[in-house]
Amino acid sequence: MTSKLLIKNGTVITMNDDNDILDSTDVLIENDTIKSVSPAITEPGDDLKIIAGDGKVVIPGLINLHNHAAMSLFRSYADDYPLMEWLEKKIFPAEAKLTEEDVYWGTSLALLEMIRGGTTTFVDMYYYMDETARACLDGGIRAVLSQVFIGVNSSEGYNSLQDAIKFVENWQDQAGGRIITILGPHAPYTCPPEFLKRVLKETEHIKTPIHIHLSESRHEVHESIEKHGKTPVALMNDLGMFERPVLAAHCVHLTDEDIDILASKGVGISHNPGSNLKLGNGIAPLKKLLDKGAKVGLGTDGAASNNNLDMFEEIRLSSLLQKGLYENPTYITAHEAFSLATRGGAEALKMNNLGVIKEGAKADIAILDFNKPHLQPHNNPVANIVYSASASDVETVIVDGKLLFEKGTFLTLDEEKIYFEATRCAKRLRQ
Amino acid sequence: MTSKLLIKNGTVITMNDDNDILDSTDVLIENDTIKSVSPAITEPGDDLKIIAGDGKVVIPGLINLHNHAAMSLFRSYADDYPLMEWLEKKIFPAEAKLTEEDVYWGTSLALLEMIRGGTTTFVDMYYYMDETARACLDGGIRAVLSQVFIGVNSSEGYNSLQDAIKFVENWQDQAGGRIITILGPHAPYTCPPEFLKRVLKETEHIKTPIHIHLSESRHEVHESIEKHGKTPVALMNDLGMFERPVLAAHCVHLTDEDIDILASKGVGISHNPGSNLKLGNGIAPLKKLLDKGAKVGLGTDGAASNNNLDMFEEIRLSSLLQKGLYENPTYITAHEAFSLATRGGAEALKMNNLGVIKEGAKADIAILDFNKPHLQPHNNPVANIVYSASASDVETVIVDGKLLFEKGTFLTLDEEKIYFEATRCAKRLRQ
Repeated sequence: MTSKLLIKNGTVITMNDDNDILDSTDVLIENDTIKSVSPAITEPGDDLKIIAGDGKVVIPGLINLHNHAAMSLFRSYADDYPLMEWLEKKIFPAEAKLTEEDVYWGTSLALLEMIRGGTTTFVDMYYYMDETARACLDGGIRAVLSQVFIGVNSSEGYNSLQDAIKFVENWQDQAGGRIITILGPHAPYTCPPEFLKRVLKETEHIKTPIHIHLSESRHEVHESIEKHGKTPVALMNDLGMFERPVLAAHCVHLTDEDIDILASKGVGISHNPGSNLKLGNGIAPLKKLLDKGAKVGLGTDGAASNNNLDMFEEIRLSSLLQKGLYENPTYITAHEAFSLATRGGAEALKMNNLGVIKEGAKADIAILDFNKPHLQPHNNPVANIVYSASASDVETVIVDGKLLFEKGTFLTLDEEKIYFEATRCAKRLRQ
Repeated sequence: MTSKLLIKNGTVITMNDDNDILDSTDVLIENDTIKSVSPAITEPGDDLKIIAGDGKVVIPGLINLHNHAAMSLFRSYADDYPLMEWLEKKIFPAEAKLTEEDVYWGTSLALLEMIRGGTTTFVDMYYYMDETARACLDGGIRAVLSQVFIGVNSSEGYNSLQDAIKFVENWQDQAGGRIITILGPHAPYTCPPEFLKRVLKETEHIKTPIHIHLSESRHEVHESIEKHGKTPVALMNDLGMFERPVLAAHCVHLTDEDIDILASKGVGISHNPGSNLKLGNGIAPLKKLLDKGAKVGLGTDGAASNNNLDMFEEIRLSSLLQKGLYENPTYITAHEAFSLATRGGAEALKMNNLGVIKEGAKADIAILDFNKPHLQPHNNPVANIVYSASASDVETVIVDGKLLFEKGTFLTLDEEKIYFEATRCAKRLRQ
């Protein structure tokens, strides 16, 4: 049976090639696809669900390029620590106690938060990813998932690589293509060159892109130069990693040569400004990356280092930080910032049927209620979103043509049960 | 008649001298004052209003130290422009059309936003301040108001100073002390030294503090050194301005000597990180200021340069920016950041009965609903507020013992009417 949704009379920020912002426009969805974007669509059918868009702003669903969703259990469990103490005394010991059910409930909590905030696609990298995938199956969000592996010890590294390949094989294109898998070698500093070469060789037969942390901290770059005589980006390039599609998270500490490499190789970049600030890593050279044509989108990182998964904050930070850092208010305009979280994310993932509201694109949409003090008056809807909005302004969320959230109610997830179970898991982990 | 409010069973973040965070605690309010903070208060009286605090977090109302409230009409009217073009081609021409009713409705819109976001006291500086004061009288918020004046032309400057003095005399301590007035010379670069000396002399008889923009942009500091051979802070100090209570807005570009002066003279500082980023002014040395013992609170600045009045964002930025800028995640802890928006603001204003929940303090309180995905699990309530919360998490707001906002409803302001009138005013101004 065909499922049909019609959004009537909204202000539609399309993010199409002409950057059309269309007033009093309808969006017709059939099954998982946008069928038509036009004023005054009349569509017959008793099974047609209609959503009133009057006074609302309709946007492409947001794309969160970097998360460790289950870490929402560790939100505000340990803040304001020096990085190594945070990792070694707080996060690693808690993670050592992680079980499969923790990952299921932690991910479910993150899904509530992401869906509620208009995120329709997210990229994840963590442990027990079968549980993350199951939570995404239940929650209805679009997910790009990788089982993380490290290669410091080569035999353990080999085994965990095989597990990651198994995860890819089991989950690729599940839920009608809504769940996508990728490979997640943790970082160049935890995956030595010989191991990364092996990863490339062992995974030649599977076509999945690679997701990796890259040049996040100043220390990491120093160490790479000391050990290998080159930056992490140059090292990755020399190893041939960038001949494959790569999504690199962070990219904070970059040389001009690094920026040229990332741009010319079409490496997808997840810019995570909130996490980079909070962990004291710094501010990535976003303006320079974009000027060179790099493919940049936005990510929140996990809730242990952000500490929320509100993409509107990352959008805002992506603009404000470059303006402030370079003392130039024209840097990263509202349109550019909003683009990062929509089309930019889609391009970084090479999934060009996302991040845009047009005929034929995937029906991933968020609807914002602008009838709020901080979104009045309506001088400019894109600027209102970028400089004023937050996750709580999202009223309706559609993924793959299905309603996941409508006027305060989650339609696929049991909010109270998830709070209860996540609280129970978090209590045990922090003991 | 005594009016009584009892908040039952909340988690109370007191910000008292012991920084107590009290679970399952009650707060009893009588008229405009907090009478008791204790578990299981039983209070007779048919006229007692009870607010259930179970699962809620009770905080001191937030203090916004720098605003131009009526500029909410210009929210997203002009973004991403170079500073001088923004001012001269967009803001000044629009402001030239301002009328008294614009200021009333623009302020009212800002009051909706501030009250909705848990702000209970704000400092303002703008034109037609009688209208701002009237809006505050109607809205019930606590306000510290100054009619701005500039002294580039000495006779006009003198007249506008007299108007500002008249405003002080008319409105000081109105609404039972809820409305307070101060003097608002715009900035050292618009008020030359001779004029500032005159201001000090003419206002010796009124005891009000002075609110002034100070060292906001790099350009302003360069120009001051060129013209006067000293920084704006040193110039103010040499003129004797700091012998009076001063609240200085911005303080972004400071020398070490400037920081020493501000700290030793006890100058109140409004740190406005969002506006400073957005206008491309930079990042203030907050950590250094606090290390020297300066009296710092937080402000949003007007909505034309922020673009919202969400104090939770300023709290979060105050911490994240210092961590990122200095690449040190231990800088500005959650407690320190929250303190800036509560006790810090009160100390900068030298109003020590604000920003704290304790017996005898003013009954200015916000209650947050933590039953939201981004505030779960409850590992640490202060960190949850600082690193995850936003204005929309505020459920109830009390100022001077009176309920202004409760579960989505404004009790003193007509939300729909204000949207209508503010939209009408904004349309005319941007034509």
